[in-house]
Amino acid sequence: MNKLYHGAAYYPELWDRDTIEEDIIYMKKAGINVVRMGEFAWSTMEPTEGSIDVGFFEEMIVKLASHGIETVFCTPTPTPPIWYSYGYPERMHVDKNGRTMGHGSRQHACTNHPIFREKAALITEELAKRLGKLPGLIGWQIDNEFKCHVSECMCEQCKSLWHDWLKEKYGTIDNLNNKWGTQIWSEAYLAFEQVPQPGPTPFLHHSSLSTMYRLFSMEKIAEFSDEQATIIRKHSNAPITHNSSVAFSVDNERLFENLDFASFDTYATIENYPAYLFNHDLFRNIKSGKAFWVMETSTSYAASLASYAMPHPDGYLQAEAIASYALGAQGFCYWLWRQQKSGCEQPHSSVLSAWGKPTIGFENVLEVEEIRKKIEPIIAETYVPQAELAITYSDRAKAFLETEPHQNLQHRRLMTAFYERILHMGISRDLITEQTSLDGYKLLFTPFLPAISHDYLMRAKAFVEAGGIWIVGPLSGGRTEEHTIHTDMALGELERLIGANVLFTFPMNENEAVGSAFDVSAPLSLWSSVFEYDSKTSVGIITEGIAKGHSFLSEYRLGKGKVVMLGSMPIGQAGDTLLTKLIEHYSKEVQLSTQLSVTKGTIVVPREHEQYTVWFIINMDGQGGSVNIQESATNLITKENIQAGELEIGKFEYVVIRFEKTQQ
Amino acid sequence: MNKLYHGAAYYPELWDRDTIEEDIIYMKKAGINVVRMGEFAWSTMEPTEGSIDVGFFEEMIVKLASHGIETVFCTPTPTPPIWYSYGYPERMHVDKNGRTMGHGSRQHACTNHPIFREKAALITEELAKRLGKLPGLIGWQIDNEFKCHVSECMCEQCKSLWHDWLKEKYGTIDNLNNKWGTQIWSEAYLAFEQVPQPGPTPFLHHSSLSTMYRLFSMEKIAEFSDEQATIIRKHSNAPITHNSSVAFSVDNERLFENLDFASFDTYATIENYPAYLFNHDLFRNIKSGKAFWVMETSTSYAASLASYAMPHPDGYLQAEAIASYALGAQGFCYWLWRQQKSGCEQPHSSVLSAWGKPTIGFENVLEVEEIRKKIEPIIAETYVPQAELAITYSDRAKAFLETEPHQNLQHRRLMTAFYERILHMGISRDLITEQTSLDGYKLLFTPFLPAISHDYLMRAKAFVEAGGIWIVGPLSGGRTEEHTIHTDMALGELERLIGANVLFTFPMNENEAVGSAFDVSAPLSLWSSVFEYDSKTSVGIITEGIAKGHSFLSEYRLGKGKVVMLGSMPIGQAGDTLLTKLIEHYSKEVQLSTQLSVTKGTIVVPREHEQYTVWFIINMDGQGGSVNIQESATNLITKENIQAGELEIGKFEYVVIRFEKTQQ
Amino acid sequence: MNKLYHGAAYYPELWDRDTIEEDIIYMKKAGINVVRMGEFAWSTMEPTEGSIDVGFFEEMIVKLASHGIETVFCTPTPTPPIWYSYGYPERMHVDKNGRTMGHGSRQHACTNHPIFREKAALITEELAKRLGKLPGLIGWQIDNEFKCHVSECMCEQCKSLWHDWLKEKYGTIDNLNNKWGTQIWSEAYLAFEQVPQPGPTPFLHHSSLSTMYRLFSMEKIAEFSDEQATIIRKHSNAPITHNSSVAFSVDNERLFENLDFASFDTYATIENYPAYLFNHDLFRNIKSGKAFWVMETSTSYAASLASYAMPHPDGYLQAEAIASYALGAQGFCYWLWRQQKSGCEQPHSSVLSAWGKPTIGFENVLEVEEIRKKIEPIIAETYVPQAELAITYSDRAKAFLETEPHQNLQHRRLMTAFYERILHMGISRDLITEQTSLDGYKLLFTPFLPAISHDYLMRAKAFVEAGGIWIVGPLSGGRTEEHTIHTDMALGELERLIGANVLFTFPMNENEAVGSAFDVSAPLSLWSSVFEYDSKTSVGIITEGIAKGHSFLSEYRLGKGKVVMLGSMPIGQAGDTLLTKLIEHYSKEVQLSTQLSVTKGTIVVPREHEQYTVWFIINMDGQGGSVNIQESATNLITKENIQAGELEIGKFEYVVIRFEKTQQ
Repeated sequence: MNKLYHGAAYYPELWDRDTIEEDIIYMKKAGINVVRMGEFAWSTMEPTEGSIDVGFFEEMIVKLASHGIETVFCTPTPTPPIWYSYGYPERMHVDKNGRTMGHGSRQHACTNHPIFREKAALITEELAKRLGKLPGLIGWQIDNEFKCHVSECMCEQCKSLWHDWLKEKYGTIDNLNNKWGTQIWSEAYLAFEQVPQPGPTPFLHHSSLSTMYRLFSMEKIAEFSDEQATIIRKHSNAPITHNSSVAFSVDNERLFENLDFASFDTYATIENYPAYLFNHDLFRNIKSGKAFWVMETSTSYAASLASYAMPHPDGYLQAEAIASYALGAQGFCYWLWRQQKSGCEQPHSSVLSAWGKPTIGFENVLEVEEIRKKIEPIIAETYVPQAELAITYSDRAKAFLETEPHQNLQHRRLMTAFYERILHMGISRDLITEQTSLDGYKLLFTPFLPAISHDYLMRAKAFVEAGGIWIVGPLSGGRTEEHTIHTDMALGELERLIGANVLFTFPMNENEAVGSAFDVSAPLSLWSSVFEYDSKTSVGIITEGIAKGHSFLSEYRLGKGKVVMLGSMPIGQAGDTLLTKLIEHYSKEVQLSTQLSVTKGTIVVPREHEQYTVWFIINMDGQGGSVNIQESATNLITKENIQAGELEIGKFEYVVIRFEKTQQ
Repeated sequence: MNKLYHGAAYYPELWDRDTIEEDIIYMKKAGINVVRMGEFAWSTMEPTEGSIDVGFFEEMIVKLASHGIETVFCTPTPTPPIWYSYGYPERMHVDKNGRTMGHGSRQHACTNHPIFREKAALITEELAKRLGKLPGLIGWQIDNEFKCHVSECMCEQCKSLWHDWLKEKYGTIDNLNNKWGTQIWSEAYLAFEQVPQPGPTPFLHHSSLSTMYRLFSMEKIAEFSDEQATIIRKHSNAPITHNSSVAFSVDNERLFENLDFASFDTYATIENYPAYLFNHDLFRNIKSGKAFWVMETSTSYAASLASYAMPHPDGYLQAEAIASYALGAQGFCYWLWRQQKSGCEQPHSSVLSAWGKPTIGFENVLEVEEIRKKIEPIIAETYVPQAELAITYSDRAKAFLETEPHQNLQHRRLMTAFYERILHMGISRDLITEQTSLDGYKLLFTPFLPAISHDYLMRAKAFVEAGGIWIVGPLSGGRTEEHTIHTDMALGELERLIGANVLFTFPMNENEAVGSAFDVSAPLSLWSSVFEYDSKTSVGIITEGIAKGHSFLSEYRLGKGKVVMLGSMPIGQAGDTLLTKLIEHYSKEVQLSTQLSVTKGTIVVPREHEQYTVWFIINMDGQGGSVNIQESATNLITKENIQAGELEIGKFEYVVIRFEKTQQ
Repeated sequence: MNKLYHGAAYYPELWDRDTIEEDIIYMKKAGINVVRMGEFAWSTMEPTEGSIDVGFFEEMIVKLASHGIETVFCTPTPTPPIWYSYGYPERMHVDKNGRTMGHGSRQHACTNHPIFREKAALITEELAKRLGKLPGLIGWQIDNEFKCHVSECMCEQCKSLWHDWLKEKYGTIDNLNNKWGTQIWSEAYLAFEQVPQPGPTPFLHHSSLSTMYRLFSMEKIAEFSDEQATIIRKHSNAPITHNSSVAFSVDNERLFENLDFASFDTYATIENYPAYLFNHDLFRNIKSGKAFWVMETSTSYAASLASYAMPHPDGYLQAEAIASYALGAQGFCYWLWRQQKSGCEQPHSSVLSAWGKPTIGFENVLEVEEIRKKIEPIIAETYVPQAELAITYSDRAKAFLETEPHQNLQHRRLMTAFYERILHMGISRDLITEQTSLDGYKLLFTPFLPAISHDYLMRAKAFVEAGGIWIVGPLSGGRTEEHTIHTDMALGELERLIGANVLFTFPMNENEAVGSAFDVSAPLSLWSSVFEYDSKTSVGIITEGIAKGHSFLSEYRLGKGKVVMLGSMPIGQAGDTLLTKLIEHYSKEVQLSTQLSVTKGTIVVPREHEQYTVWFIINMDGQGGSVNIQESATNLITKENIQAGELEIGKFEYVVIRFEKTQQ
């Protein structure tokens, strides 16, 4: 990665020629070296059905390139024009309550309708042909934020595809009935055609039906993405991405399978900076070995007609940018360049105002550019090493929790909180998908994964046998992949593998249940697995409540390593302490080398070179902090020498230091 | 009642033969002597339309009987199979927003559709014929929890039945218009066909329309129950019940009219143990003189995919069981035997787990069985005497309050709170329906009954004239049976009968209005009737607020007794004290013999024998307590002698003592 | 204005002859001299289609007149009879979720359907003909509370009218696309027929579409009102009004354009007495120079089946009545005379109960009548002078804020709070519409007006140039009349006019941003305009937050006056102080003569006569207070002399004093 991109979303189709000229001048001033264009411009490219002309964008790409500004071009499929929607309600997205979406916003069309696919293919092919080899065209983005406003579509077309998908997956309706256990409540189906979409019912739908419909929907949107990518590749060699998020109703692992690099959009405010970083540690590993992009973030605040976030405090944008580049982002891009003058996102922050002036946050953009230039050579010579600690992230688990939220549980919130603890402990970490190779890791966490697949289990087993420690839970393993309950043992194959004995599973009453481990007692919560007490395996004992005397935390040796079953969720401040001690304990046991002594709110991002290590130290919370430096180093920006000891970091300050590697 | 049942809901149709064998072994171990089967198994019995075969259940009943396990068999009508639902949206339930329910849960079918009635009759007749005389078949349950997920259906079929029902009730449309007062807002109808169901309107519907539609719906579901019972009785002598609840949209009094015994489902947690007991004191009197059943309760906690209750603390299940048996339950049954492996209630507690192990709560089940065996002979020789204090409970009043909730009032919550106070005072009490005979009572409470029927009034009058004290209110009597306002006097016939003078009715502002009675002053609340002050009748005076100087509590002599009008609701801690004093005052006046000195959280259930009295003393709240024993007695479990004085009761402890009756 | 009316809504069509006789006797007793009749009585007048007979009301008007009770008669169009609704779903109102309203409440019909207009015209013409010249008929009310339950209708008929309206407004679809900026999100339309109503979409609709649909709906209901008024005027000279409110989805300025006098309904409770007064200061100016009416207010509390307000404390009704008459109301009328016996408003307070007795509040009604008689001659000889301070109120601004609520902002709440501050400062004030002449004012406030029209701007400019001070903001001027963002300057024409320089606009973070002016520092909030600091123009400086050092409050000289730009919203207690000081500062600068020293909770209403000034001093909050009298005066009720100095006012007390004017 030799170049760091500093970019912005750009909608020249909404403005006149003079404004565009003004924009380019300001882009140069602000150090914008890449724009993203095209994702909502279908009606500009094809104002009436069949009248495709993408000349305007061809011209724009060339013009921008002539000013040194490169382009990521997007397919415009999130917003089909009026000629596609008007008079065709059957082509529209239908929500859970059966309401058919109308024209006037975005994502109103069902992406599974064959005519949609056909029209999308035509416009994308034309774009790929005409723009695919232009100078300055460095990448493609398919569509925009798939499923950010909608989740599963309930239209008639989807119903029919759902039946096909089920037929493909289950072969016979008897097999489906059997796998799902539909004899319950006399739900059993006589034919695939009878299996409903999860629409209105007097009480909850069957878990398997609900979860499978979510997986079906995730597969279908990925299939659309695949189709689009195939078309583009016929005419262009530029790498392809999608701007995704863990907040959308997609399976990111599956979605990026056939794309070339990962990118995401994030609008976390400073209070949620761990959520901001979470994205980096995840998307870096979604297309492992390939640089990812922060495709959208605000210069100051996100807003629409109906809500707004608080603006960034002065200094935070820079902290975000350095953190992004240091954690492996090649691109750091704003949404958006020039404030929308119409539509429903008029109040959203931008680089320029609708009337062409630098807006709030513009000064910060200039500072980001200063930083980018300073760190570009440092980034170019180093790389983000694989962490020793990994946490499995699964969008399929998210689907399971949407079907079975127990008590309003949200997968994203649970995962972010779990991640945050490890972040604050100063441990370098990777968020990895279910299929990511476990090679090279020492410590693996698998929290909040209701269904552990056979494949995952086998790879985790090999990881453990080779010496790794695998910490499973809370809320992991208690469901089959069909979203039913195991009928052999509480945790099925996993339990048999480790030789555990789960006595029962039930929701802990956090006002009564107490667990004790690592000399800490804490309330226990969530749907829990309780293990038989055994002095050889029990690490955490339940000391209060109806499962008193049993174990909520047990270790099982397997080959050279260990499986640690965290059956319940310690909560509150004491729970946090307990979990922190647990992580410390096993980090020590596997001899993690990456835990650093840094105050909460400040992060250290190590990057490697053959001969040296670089640390990016960044204060994210605006409170300042310090980090313990164990050997002398050089400040790469000031070139000053830094002594071992406590290094103070000011509010939103960043320091880049270099440690020489001793010869081995 | 010679036998006490200890049972569980059982779904053998969902499991294989080996599992069933295992189940029976465990049932014997756990002391389960009755199962309930069949209520969701329609697709097992009739997998395709017309292919009825109930052989599996015939075999199950016989097999279980051979192990000493008897059966209550259910008609499977809550879950019509896919051949009934698929392709027939006109047969489905339609909710208030006009959404047609789909297959995939339960109660999706409109129970008023003629084809539903026809299909239900066929399956039920076959079940009755084939199973009706089997050994071990001791009872029938019709359907399951009528209207637990749905309330009034808005389908076209119901619309037509609604018109027939109105025609039957009102004769002419002019009569309906007149009774309802539809001239208001030009609502007047020219024909029955024009009277809408209470669907979407810009503002609230007319009160009469709303309430009558609820009563119509309640009548129709009872009519379906009647039809089913008639069919069963053609082929079986086993008594028939339904597992109901005050939480469902049914009129329990009407529903049980043509059934043989009462039963109910309850999942109250320990915090709501008064609500648990409420059911017993009510359903005992719904089919007066016949033992009732607790048909469903959890061993530990209720749960679905989307929510869960906290598990019972250790000891509470036993307290529940003893209380149930002592209060007159013949059966105490769990939902469910073996954890669901699929569907939407997988996390619900059970006796065995889905993988065949005893789950949390299993030990408590064993203890219940121990207790059952110990108390069975004591129960067999005694009976629950009629209480001296009665509280009228009306599901029709619930319908009125749903139409007119004033400020989010909930009938069930109001009634439970009212009941709870009397419970905590240690007074034996009956909850009785509107038509229950008042003979034998001394003190009658009629709270939260907006419309007092002429029949009820006449019987209450006779009760009072014979010496009873009738306490009416709060919120009682201010509406006609058509849910309109009286136009002769505020409380209509009641007011005239007692010679009261209601000055006005209005909602008291609890921040301003204060009432004083029995030397207590308390804030007044709720829609209130204010009586003219008269030193002869006024007992409670309004001392603050806009009705200052008038009366909120007045007594009127009638024959040998009194009608006490409680026009307003004293609230807060002071209100509770005032109401407690009121109850004490009138209890004393009628010389109630059953008020016991027992600490809150512990209950005393007296049972009678010709020669002795037995007290079941049970600590329900897990805090322990004590009860004052006025004469020496014998502990029937330990056979020890107990001296008069304060008897300590441990946490969840139960003590059964016997007092000898002195010869009269 | 020689006569003050004391009235009540009366529904004789719901009662029998005897009851009507009783009513009239009580009306005389209570001093009711006017009734309002007819607004829901369509089915009485035309029980079947075409069978119009209004004889009953003719008789009623004459009978009442013979007792000295005059009548305001209403057209009955809010409640079309069943013959209009039954079987015609296409005539009904359709809500935002596409639900078609049914019969059974009111406002169920779409008022834009041609058959509705036709039927409404027929009944209204008949009423006008038959009743228009009757003795005692002193006024007309069209319909009742337009759009109080519904807002925009989404029916097919409205869709077609919407297209016509757009065609009329924009001429060509290209012009619409251009004005709205529909190129965004490929929304662009090829024909007017394609422009949707703002129904369901995955995310927010385009701002212009949403706002224009609201304006279209407001125009259509006013058009209906116009039609009705035209019909009435053919046969009657009695003045015409509508009982409106700022809470309804109407544009009051436009609605009253073709009506003869203003009236409104208000049910504010004592806590919201400023909202009660707000109506008076607004509706007095909506038909400037013509007396307005309080057409509906409760004697004690508003209620329906589902909710109720707290009853008025004793004394408040009188305070309301005096305040109304003093502030210019000619009529003060209750809703309603006799409690509803049926329908959905049974619990609502009234003068008589449904059973014909005086209800709670009746005594207060008698006191109101006493007061009315006492003050009638004083009112008759004086008038409410135009205030020197005006605040612009705009229902179109309300529509903009509904489309763009930022963070749940409510126009009414914002305006009331702004008004309340000025009220509490003892300053006489007018709330005026956008088109009201600015002549005679010294100080003009324009808060919360997103789009400032060119016409308004030109008139405000003239006002300022002539010496006025115009205080603009917060939240004013940042949107075009099409609800888009200006593209020339942040505030468009306004900014150019005053020569300001808005640096940026963004939502202030009230936890960080602080503004300082008039020696007060306060948190800043809301979407804000930040002005370049300039020692000549900056009055309020931003001292903390990301816009630190710039200005949130700047003055710009224009002719003999000043434009004061309040770019942000100071909040909290300090914000209130800052705004109070701002108002004081500019009041002083323009030498307002009407600021009085009166304690909060007590109001002073000055009225003028050529030779003297009368003050109505009224304690509204029931806490009592005082007012500083600067010269000696006469108490017009007691005839006592009052010395200059502090005059104590008791709880809910009113004092009317007269100051002689010294000869000039």
